[in-house]
Amino acid sequence: MQIAILLFDRFTALDAVGPYETLGRLPGAETVFVAERTGPVRTDTGNLALTADRTLAEVPHPDLVVVPGGPGQSALMTDATLLDWLRAADATSTWTTSVCTGSLLLAAAGLLTGRRATSHWLALDHLRSYGAEPTRERVVVDGKYATAAGVSAGIDMGLALLGRIASDDHARTVQLATEYDPQPPYDAGSPGKAPAHLVELLRSRSRFILT
Amino acid sequence: MQIAILLFDRFTALDAVGPYETLGRLPGAETVFVAERTGPVRTDTGNLALTADRTLAEVPHPDLVVVPGGPGQSALMTDATLLDWLRAADATSTWTTSVCTGSLLLAAAGLLTGRRATSHWLALDHLRSYGAEPTRERVVVDGKYATAAGVSAGIDMGLALLGRIASDDHARTVQLATEYDPQPPYDAGSPGKAPAHLVELLRSRSRFILT
Repeated sequence: MQIAILLFDRFTALDAVGPYETLGRLPGAETVFVAERTGPVRTDTGNLALTADRTLAEVPHPDLVVVPGGPGQSALMTDATLLDWLRAADATSTWTTSVCTGSLLLAAAGLLTGRRATSHWLALDHLRSYGAEPTRERVVVDGKYATAAGVSAGIDMGLALLGRIASDDHARTVQLATEYDPQPPYDAGSPGKAPAHLVELLRSRSRFILT
Repeated sequence: MQIAILLFDRFTALDAVGPYETLGRLPGAETVFVAERTGPVRTDTGNLALTADRTLAEVPHPDLVVVPGGPGQSALMTDATLLDWLRAADATSTWTTSVCTGSLLLAAAGLLTGRRATSHWLALDHLRSYGAEPTRERVVVDGKYATAAGVSAGIDMGLALLGRIASDDHARTVQLATEYDPQPPYDAGSPGKAPAHLVELLRSRSRFILT
């Protein structure tokens, strides 16, 4: 099985690395990081670059596609090269997946029409404009489409897909190897749990990010 | 504040990216990825490279040091260039930290002598050989030394340090922005929770990895 993880300028690192570190441990799978051009691709902070080893054109038929999100997603919503690649890859993929605002790219490519999907909580409602049904869950699976909520949710999605594709025990082994026994020091990871003034703070900032 | 995140051949990606994505959101901080040489540094799977933007020599006095782990740690336990850099950086740092088997490198540099520290559960006992006191907790803070357990524990450590360095509310804001509301689909993230046969499976494999 070939797993293609997309990179683009100003993606969010953990969106890509969460699925890589879990789903990428699928036995016999080849994981390849792809982008429009090969070479280093900078994240949203500008302080980190991940290497794209192959161009989109070199990986036309991955079995599993992972599309991360991040501020750079906005600029790609009408990028014909990327959207055409997503459609072509999806035509033969076994799984088409996203983390965070990566689902907006899948939706813009027309791949989530009529499907339940999730996204970063700040972007969730935008899915409706592209024909998807916004679903406030951490990981949403509808047919062969798996979408994860914001950033860190890609870890949970990766383990869930490992269980379906390999086995429950293999997913548990990867969870144990990555010591994924989360103990966040705060309980503020969703808008329903965080203090209201912090939810409002991020909402006010997002008006500049998401539009 | 300057945050230096170390990269080395065959490190584990999430060990570095967890703290980057949380602690790196410290207001006013400059995060820089460092290695013995600049350029792409391959992870333990070989399928991903992160870019080191600066050499160790170019970043002699970071305020906060993050040392990730991974299979490549073993080869560095007597690497004079790295251990000298760790000692010199530690001499002026505000915080010296690690994720996973990165704590073995801190210990090999003599920085954890007599201190409580943690590591990946498979490596925890090795800390004692280097004079540290193995402590089976997800995040251990002893003075200015913060160590995290395996791989994903760096996310929890990053948030805990954000709270101490900035404020509880800033840490909560980053937790909300990264939607870190973990919902693992399995409960196998520690040797005390995972099925015994999977714990034994990883123990038998680790004899070849950790020695």
